[in-house]
Amino acid sequence: LAALLGSVGAMAQSSVTVFGVIDVAARDLKGANSVKQLVNEGRAASRLGFRGVEDIGGGLKASFHIEAGLAPDTGSADAAFWQRRSTVSLSGDFGEVRLGRQKAATRTLIDEFDVFGGNAMSGINRIIFLDRNRMDNQVAYYLPKLGDFYGNVEVTAGEGNTTTSGKSTVGRAGYKTKQLHLSAAYGQFGALNKLKLSALGASYDFGDFQLLSSYSQYKQGTASLKVTNLGATVKVGSGKVLASYGRATGASNREANLLAVGYDYSLSKRTTLYTTFGSIDNKGTSTFALAGAAGASLPTAGGKSRGYEFGVRHNF
Amino acid sequence: LAALLGSVGAMAQSSVTVFGVIDVAARDLKGANSVKQLVNEGRAASRLGFRGVEDIGGGLKASFHIEAGLAPDTGSADAAFWQRRSTVSLSGDFGEVRLGRQKAATRTLIDEFDVFGGNAMSGINRIIFLDRNRMDNQVAYYLPKLGDFYGNVEVTAGEGNTTTSGKSTVGRAGYKTKQLHLSAAYGQFGALNKLKLSALGASYDFGDFQLLSSYSQYKQGTASLKVTNLGATVKVGSGKVLASYGRATGASNREANLLAVGYDYSLSKRTTLYTTFGSIDNKGTSTFALAGAAGASLPTAGGKSRGYEFGVRHNF
Amino acid sequence: LAALLGSVGAMAQSSVTVFGVIDVAARDLKGANSVKQLVNEGRAASRLGFRGVEDIGGGLKASFHIEAGLAPDTGSADAAFWQRRSTVSLSGDFGEVRLGRQKAATRTLIDEFDVFGGNAMSGINRIIFLDRNRMDNQVAYYLPKLGDFYGNVEVTAGEGNTTTSGKSTVGRAGYKTKQLHLSAAYGQFGALNKLKLSALGASYDFGDFQLLSSYSQYKQGTASLKVTNLGATVKVGSGKVLASYGRATGASNREANLLAVGYDYSLSKRTTLYTTFGSIDNKGTSTFALAGAAGASLPTAGGKSRGYEFGVRHNF
Repeated sequence: LAALLGSVGAMAQSSVTVFGVIDVAARDLKGANSVKQLVNEGRAASRLGFRGVEDIGGGLKASFHIEAGLAPDTGSADAAFWQRRSTVSLSGDFGEVRLGRQKAATRTLIDEFDVFGGNAMSGINRIIFLDRNRMDNQVAYYLPKLGDFYGNVEVTAGEGNTTTSGKSTVGRAGYKTKQLHLSAAYGQFGALNKLKLSALGASYDFGDFQLLSSYSQYKQGTASLKVTNLGATVKVGSGKVLASYGRATGASNREANLLAVGYDYSLSKRTTLYTTFGSIDNKGTSTFALAGAAGASLPTAGGKSRGYEFGVRHNF
Repeated sequence: LAALLGSVGAMAQSSVTVFGVIDVAARDLKGANSVKQLVNEGRAASRLGFRGVEDIGGGLKASFHIEAGLAPDTGSADAAFWQRRSTVSLSGDFGEVRLGRQKAATRTLIDEFDVFGGNAMSGINRIIFLDRNRMDNQVAYYLPKLGDFYGNVEVTAGEGNTTTSGKSTVGRAGYKTKQLHLSAAYGQFGALNKLKLSALGASYDFGDFQLLSSYSQYKQGTASLKVTNLGATVKVGSGKVLASYGRATGASNREANLLAVGYDYSLSKRTTLYTTFGSIDNKGTSTFALAGAAGASLPTAGGKSRGYEFGVRHNF
Repeated sequence: LAALLGSVGAMAQSSVTVFGVIDVAARDLKGANSVKQLVNEGRAASRLGFRGVEDIGGGLKASFHIEAGLAPDTGSADAAFWQRRSTVSLSGDFGEVRLGRQKAATRTLIDEFDVFGGNAMSGINRIIFLDRNRMDNQVAYYLPKLGDFYGNVEVTAGEGNTTTSGKSTVGRAGYKTKQLHLSAAYGQFGALNKLKLSALGASYDFGDFQLLSSYSQYKQGTASLKVTNLGATVKVGSGKVLASYGRATGASNREANLLAVGYDYSLSKRTTLYTTFGSIDNKGTSTFALAGAAGASLPTAGGKSRGYEFGVRHNF
């Protein structure tokens, strides 16, 4: 059997694409104290991936996508190597059925309407708690193209796991033109003490100027959180200014404001130099922190987490 | 030195083949209780590999093969990343010398004559114990083409390890035409308390109908097991029906029958949709289980392990 | 954001080079006792890597290099998967700025002037202690081409780590023509109890005959070590004889002589058969050992570590 698979594999060689990102920044983070560090995700998580599409005929396609995070500062890989995404899909006139592990659609929405994205020093997810990011054992269905509308649902097999990492049902729908993008998502995670998550996103592209916004709610038992994010990008020559403001409101240990500004200078379509300044102002006893904060650079309760960075993002 | 190797590597670029399988199935397993899950190996273990052949001239070839298992349901990799196979070979008129880690020939035989193969929900190896699968530190020699006959021997360096994972000597020989395939293998594993394993396989391809069978014996000290497997495949349109019956006889805690039927529908040479129903009926106090069974889906002593699955296997 | 990166990645596909080495040897090591084993680095560490260069225009280039060690004898990968090297670079008329993890320049020098290199059974580093090899969080700068002169400096962010794995400053400069190569490096590692390391290297290529030598000093607090290495290679037909002599002098538990001879037979530019005999004679209570020695094959205090090997190195 192995020999047979092997030879089929060789025939299919042309269909494999190797891709990735190496994004390294020098960052200075200040919480209780200041710590200088090298980090791996100023604008996008460093990664290596393999993907391919097979055109079966009659509009039917089979495809796969496996993607591994990596940390160039230490050379380490993620604990679950292909945890960023590992899926196989069948797509056609009926839409797409996708099986495996990937980001939940609720999180995909929030990251898409965030100027800095999910892995940035100052991503809006820095002031979110109760969230679910990537999910194991996912069976997802994507609607076919319906004009400017799109939608998908995702269910995950609990496999006996009753936490919010187990069983889940997530749906997302949206309307997207060249200028306007509107999207809504809802998800339930877990069995016994369900996490309920809803998110809305809206953006408009004015050409050299782009506005993005998201609003999300997180509820689990008596715990709840509301997060608002407003962002803008402005083209300036070969570069782009990015700005993001976020606000989390919940219990007194979950209140904070986030402010971040950045500048991207594109050396090419694949390579960008960037700088960012970010700040989280915790309220009450909150301890939200910028990405990368650890040990001495963590904020005190109700304190500030500030940082700046200079980095390079190289796509391949 | 590194710089030199680097440049040589670049020259050789054209020879590297990226290959793999993503095989994901939705499976319902029932032992003591029923558990639904997403799994990674309905028909073949999900994997990513790299291999290449260098034609040195004069019939001499150097080649390498590294192959990593992966689990699309969670994104995780095998504990020893390239544990499926990591070898370098020299081959020519004299045959092939292969160094590294790979499956022992005794196991290769059993998997080859199994309709479902080694990683399937209902592979015959589900009712085998005392077995050895892949071996570290292997030095293998393959005979050159001798008409329809083939053969190889494998020895592994114990490196001070006295268990059946250490020192081993394995041999296999066979006769293979387009229709008929006969094969025999024998292996000794370990130093102090040797595991002795013998296996026979026979198959005949009638065209649209194929019969396969294997018989294997496992002995270590007073423990022993005999396993018989009989399988058949029948082409039906673009698809194929697979059936497998197995029987293990040994001590009262090692007796079981296995029955499995499946159907493969080929979307293309690379992509297959499949479904399988499998059942293990344990005798006495045996607790053999279908692949993937864990926790609540494990059978009680002497109980049944049943399951069915729907999946897709995509080769690249 | 992910979707955008993805499509850029696909465009850049042509720039990714897959490269590596599979080097496997059968080795017999004798310390207190003799142990036979299969090893992964007779002449070069087995590895898999991905790298690419983007020509941005105006002499500017962006590039990346990620490299993972692997052990074909067991299929295992390094604990930090890409620990051999994981860097992103910008280079141009100004030289090169490189960010990430890689070998410190002090070690690069010692390995370059070692006939057998850093991972060999009998590399000079086998009788070095107090050394630093690869460093996390490195920001390195390489001078542009200045005739036959080269130079670079490397600093690493301590990120709160006060050991010699944390903060470091390393520099290297050299002069290299087709025949003559002279190089010097100096490094300081750690914060509280700094390791200070200096190294000199010289080599001359007479055509069929090459001489290499290095001298290095290691100081940390009251501990210190001086290591001398002298090596030669002589072309013989399609092959090459290698010889290396090393001497470490320090405290009575850090004194040893190393002697190694080897023969490389090149089947092609990519594939080499080789054999090596190596010996370390420990003085006083030293316990330096050849690479791979462990358990029973470790030398007794002041004893000998001897070994020989036959192997194949295949570059791709």
